[in-house]
Amino acid sequence: MEKILLGHGSGGRLMHQLITEHIAPSFGMDSLADAAVLDAPDVPGARIAFTTDSYVVSPLFFPGGDIGDLAVNGTVNDLAMVGAVPLWLSTGFVIEEGFAVESLRRILVSMASAARNAGVRIVAGDTKVVDKGKGDGIFINTAGIGMVRPGISLGAGMIRPGDRIIISGAIGNHGVAVMSERNGISFDPPVLSDTAPLAGLVAAMLAFEKNIRIMRDPTRGGVATTLKEIASDSGLTMVLDEERLPVPGGVRGACDLLGLDPLYIANEGILLAVVPPETAEGLVRVMQGHEQGVCAVEIGEIRAAERGRKGMVLLKTAVGGSRIIDMLAGEQLPRIC
Amino acid sequence: MEKILLGHGSGGRLMHQLITEHIAPSFGMDSLADAAVLDAPDVPGARIAFTTDSYVVSPLFFPGGDIGDLAVNGTVNDLAMVGAVPLWLSTGFVIEEGFAVESLRRILVSMASAARNAGVRIVAGDTKVVDKGKGDGIFINTAGIGMVRPGISLGAGMIRPGDRIIISGAIGNHGVAVMSERNGISFDPPVLSDTAPLAGLVAAMLAFEKNIRIMRDPTRGGVATTLKEIASDSGLTMVLDEERLPVPGGVRGACDLLGLDPLYIANEGILLAVVPPETAEGLVRVMQGHEQGVCAVEIGEIRAAERGRKGMVLLKTAVGGSRIIDMLAGEQLPRIC
Repeated sequence: MEKILLGHGSGGRLMHQLITEHIAPSFGMDSLADAAVLDAPDVPGARIAFTTDSYVVSPLFFPGGDIGDLAVNGTVNDLAMVGAVPLWLSTGFVIEEGFAVESLRRILVSMASAARNAGVRIVAGDTKVVDKGKGDGIFINTAGIGMVRPGISLGAGMIRPGDRIIISGAIGNHGVAVMSERNGISFDPPVLSDTAPLAGLVAAMLAFEKNIRIMRDPTRGGVATTLKEIASDSGLTMVLDEERLPVPGGVRGACDLLGLDPLYIANEGILLAVVPPETAEGLVRVMQGHEQGVCAVEIGEIRAAERGRKGMVLLKTAVGGSRIIDMLAGEQLPRIC
Repeated sequence: MEKILLGHGSGGRLMHQLITEHIAPSFGMDSLADAAVLDAPDVPGARIAFTTDSYVVSPLFFPGGDIGDLAVNGTVNDLAMVGAVPLWLSTGFVIEEGFAVESLRRILVSMASAARNAGVRIVAGDTKVVDKGKGDGIFINTAGIGMVRPGISLGAGMIRPGDRIIISGAIGNHGVAVMSERNGISFDPPVLSDTAPLAGLVAAMLAFEKNIRIMRDPTRGGVATTLKEIASDSGLTMVLDEERLPVPGGVRGACDLLGLDPLYIANEGILLAVVPPETAEGLVRVMQGHEQGVCAVEIGEIRAAERGRKGMVLLKTAVGGSRIIDMLAGEQLPRIC
């Protein structure tokens, strides 16, 4: 009988299969969005963004963050990515019997601080406890509501050849921070998770250019999987310039050591955006002026698809060749968020 | 060091302590509501209801339902209880590695059917997988959004002496159904979970009487805990008539066998309402005309508090005495929802 594998939760191809073959069709959809944009009935023009994420990261505490701020920032970011102003979060705890109340307190403090920092309120909650050995410390679900800014229209369908691809910061920090803690490895200087709220950065970006085509935060599956999804949805080709990809030395070293590819590593505080060519340069400067976008950089552009090769992502390598980028296959880093 | 106990998830006194001492204050609140009612910014008059619940019921399938319809109905009901029209649900799955895809499919079908039945759409989702031995089959979080009906104002503060207490149906079926499955006991006729959506019943009730004082679905902690919470919040006294409490024979028999009190057993398809005395009788008739309220009955009334005894619940017993009802203490039925 078919069984669920760890890879079904990885953010890669197996998960897409599970969602598109089983979960989404059950609910009458083609796919299940990170955040849904909904028209409020009887309230003309009001568009509500609604999202959910469960957090099962292991270990619960890691360099640069913990499951608490991760759970707040991740859901805030899903709302920000659809052009919404994040407003309210709910939180559902599934706690394993025997979990230390002191650890719960640390996590709550971290959630509260992250919520303050992101400008959202935690307004509803639920707590369940499962028997010892039937959970793993604590799992946290956060769902979030935001109001979508009027006049904003984001989506892969808006992308045109010539558009530029921008990334807001360095690649790979979150995944490497969690893996180093899990494996008892430490780096000098330490690699810290990038967990951070992106709503403020997005506000600045949309104030400067309301015709941004699409934004996505490359979490599970990493930059590669996220770009491949956008390319597939648009049917166009993405060409990335490897030399411009901001992979910090610490991440590169850790990836060499652990046999990982930085492009497939989860990030929790950066975004990818496809933007009109005319304003790309200005937008990068705007982003660089924001705390979460100091290292923003243009990393590639959109081209018309070659005949029969729709939705391709090409990486132009430093040595002059090019490599086709696909979604994460199987499981690289389980329980990274 | 202080540890989390199973009782912290029971819906009773320990859970209240955890929430009021640790969780709610962390988020700047006195308590954490089942469903929050929120004013939408820039949309005058629009009140959004927002709720979340995680479901960890064991076993996953039980007489009359499964974790799937429970997860949909439970969240729909939390929205209905604050006077909202439930609209959208999100769903977050935490699946244990090795879980049968066939069981997942059964649960998805059940969720979809429950959503159709309740008139809500599942619009956003998330799937995580944890290693074998770090979960228990599947946990499901559902968060929900509804729009609160205009002109409705519910809350313990609206309750007045003389108000009547109504229950919409029989007590104890869900808890007994789950316990019987868990312990391999069967009853003839079988006791089935009452899991059902209450939004339609609530719509009919509010159409007849918009001055209903408060509604609550007595889930974890049962009818006793829910009434005690309402009484405490109102500061008034509740007097219940034991002879009127609708406890079915099957539930009574099972409770005798298992040493349980029906008043503390979880229900998933009934509601308690405190209503104005003038319309109580009419309201009961309206409820009886609805599929989920066929067995609706008045079970007691509100009285002014005696000096120094605020928020008391008194059960007038069949033999003429009276018993003080308190919240569930400790854990009666772990993982009942």
